[in-house]
Amino acid sequence: MDLALSAAPPGQPPIVQYVHRPGLVDLGWGHPDPVLLPVEAWQRAMGAALRELGWQALTYGHAQGPGPLLAWLGQRLGEVDGRPPAPDEILITAGASQALDLVASAVVKPGDVVLVESPTYHLALRILEDHGASRVAAPCDDAGIDPAATAARIDELRRLGRRVSMIYLVPTFGNPTGRSLSVARRRALAELGAATGILVVEDDTYRELSYGPPAPASVWSHDAAGSVARLGSFSKTVAPGLRLGWITASAGLIRRLAGSGMLDSGGGLNHTTALAMAAFGASGDYGRHLEGIRSAYRSRRDALAGALATQLPELGLVVPEGGWFLWLRLPAGLSSAALLAAAEACGVSFLTGPRFFTGGGGDDRIRLAFSLFAPEILVDAVDRLRRAFEGAAARG
Amino acid sequence: MDLALSAAPPGQPPIVQYVHRPGLVDLGWGHPDPVLLPVEAWQRAMGAALRELGWQALTYGHAQGPGPLLAWLGQRLGEVDGRPPAPDEILITAGASQALDLVASAVVKPGDVVLVESPTYHLALRILEDHGASRVAAPCDDAGIDPAATAARIDELRRLGRRVSMIYLVPTFGNPTGRSLSVARRRALAELGAATGILVVEDDTYRELSYGPPAPASVWSHDAAGSVARLGSFSKTVAPGLRLGWITASAGLIRRLAGSGMLDSGGGLNHTTALAMAAFGASGDYGRHLEGIRSAYRSRRDALAGALATQLPELGLVVPEGGWFLWLRLPAGLSSAALLAAAEACGVSFLTGPRFFTGGGGDDRIRLAFSLFAPEILVDAVDRLRRAFEGAAARG
Repeated sequence: MDLALSAAPPGQPPIVQYVHRPGLVDLGWGHPDPVLLPVEAWQRAMGAALRELGWQALTYGHAQGPGPLLAWLGQRLGEVDGRPPAPDEILITAGASQALDLVASAVVKPGDVVLVESPTYHLALRILEDHGASRVAAPCDDAGIDPAATAARIDELRRLGRRVSMIYLVPTFGNPTGRSLSVARRRALAELGAATGILVVEDDTYRELSYGPPAPASVWSHDAAGSVARLGSFSKTVAPGLRLGWITASAGLIRRLAGSGMLDSGGGLNHTTALAMAAFGASGDYGRHLEGIRSAYRSRRDALAGALATQLPELGLVVPEGGWFLWLRLPAGLSSAALLAAAEACGVSFLTGPRFFTGGGGDDRIRLAFSLFAPEILVDAVDRLRRAFEGAAARG
Repeated sequence: MDLALSAAPPGQPPIVQYVHRPGLVDLGWGHPDPVLLPVEAWQRAMGAALRELGWQALTYGHAQGPGPLLAWLGQRLGEVDGRPPAPDEILITAGASQALDLVASAVVKPGDVVLVESPTYHLALRILEDHGASRVAAPCDDAGIDPAATAARIDELRRLGRRVSMIYLVPTFGNPTGRSLSVARRRALAELGAATGILVVEDDTYRELSYGPPAPASVWSHDAAGSVARLGSFSKTVAPGLRLGWITASAGLIRRLAGSGMLDSGGGLNHTTALAMAAFGASGDYGRHLEGIRSAYRSRRDALAGALATQLPELGLVVPEGGWFLWLRLPAGLSSAALLAAAEACGVSFLTGPRFFTGGGGDDRIRLAFSLFAPEILVDAVDRLRRAFEGAAARG
């Protein structure tokens, strides 16, 4: 399970996305700890799917996703969200990134404005860019996206002749902030979608990774008008290499997405994997695995947050109740780029704030991911970070 | 392995794409015969990948595809095509349909013209439509796409101010025609791409399903200028539910596709499945499986073509040397739609010609897929088809 083993031999293409930099504890990666990936349980699930369904697990799949996964997922979401989706309100996807790409293909035209939470998931910005969207920061405060101010911004953009086709946010244990949007704002956002006809895209990747109370009900669950598409993923709860996720949305939008040329031609996305996931769920392995990783990630959060509170109290950390990230504000006068240089010299790395903002800002912010490393390594990383702060302060 | 078993219980969503219509031998489906899907061998391959690579098989994958599959596939293509791709000329995809979608996202803007072989794969037309492309038939004759006439058509379109961004074709054991383009036209097409700067997209799904001499070298292998992207697939050779395919193209285009937001965010497409495929290849199972299905599909082709030659000699069938399809020309005065109605009344179905043409035509054509059924069922299907012809002729 040594991360260094993942380095490809010289001249060979790598196997994994993670790039090992010797001597560095790299808190930049929002990746799972290798020891928390369910290697044996996944083999059992795939075996069960192939044994029980045989050829049906290997042929072209139902476009919307295979019945057994739609059934299991609907039941699970009924337990961990405000309401269960009906079977015709779910589409199985090849991960949340592919889900966002698919939804953007359906609703975003080049030149459209997409309003994004600010800060927001930096790689979602890249997917939206690939669709020719102008990414515009929605009005946000320390509690997240502000629906009333966003409504005013939409009016303003429309008066300027702009077409606004999507609002994108990560409202639950968000990336990068770790925060969750209030229930009142969730309701207001669903209503804003209904009133304006703009699709609210809720990236709900971290819902199941709660370390205190359960996650708040999704924006989607407050939507009665078919104005919200919620993107879910098995990347954080089971394994990202599977490339499996889902969308819950109105039956009309699901029908439209399932009827796209790509799905009509190739059948359901990741059909074989989807049936193995249904077996993983039905066997109880999903529930057991999730309890295990929730406890492990809680320990990692506590180790990192605890060491920061002791060693770097000036950062005034707000401890998130779920997800994989701590979002820190730097002392006045210290830029995230300057700190990064000092930190890497001390053997620790992270992502700088500006990546998560469209249109500038965030240089007083850094994101630390605690998902990839054991607690003792995270504590050591804070030692290194403290030395970097001292060095940066001495030079500053 | 009874296809009827695939029907979902009433009120339950289906598992597979195939829809069973009782009493009908449906030659419309380009799907593999269930008995030819490698259920046990795939379980071994997944087991080997998880055992040997552990967590590396389940975490975020290298964007271009995992090294072991790039290496095995490069070697395999060196054996079955005109030249092997370099490691930086391959991208692993989630099937050929997703590959076409990805390439279209990169090069097609709404309103662009895409020139398509005529007739061509009908669902590729839908994927291109989703990207806002005008699908325009390239000049074709009975030998396939005509590069010189296509060059003239491009000039004409450009004089009219149209942007032409892609030429799409299935030049090897094509869908629906079963025919293969000549070597001279392959070379000319690669040169046309280089001369015009228009990307030639070669859908090479059927290369490995040759029943006589090996498939001709790909258009891509004749391309020295980076003007061709070839789409490959494991759907026909291994299993479509895996949703695994690839692209070979210039290192520059591969870099651009691998650098898209979706891959940057989610890592390599279908990473876990890709590593299982590398194990399937390295174990020798791919080669053995392919020999088996090639022989089985050859028998199916021979059964269907043989029965047609005996019972319906007036169709003047040209027997294809590979792939899954027979493409028939109907006697003068008989439309494919009229024959379909008569055929379904006799218990057999197929796809009508017009689906495969953009801009009209093809009503004197039908496509029969022989992949889904055992030889004796195909012989029986021709009996039914002959009765339908007799009925249609009596009414005509």
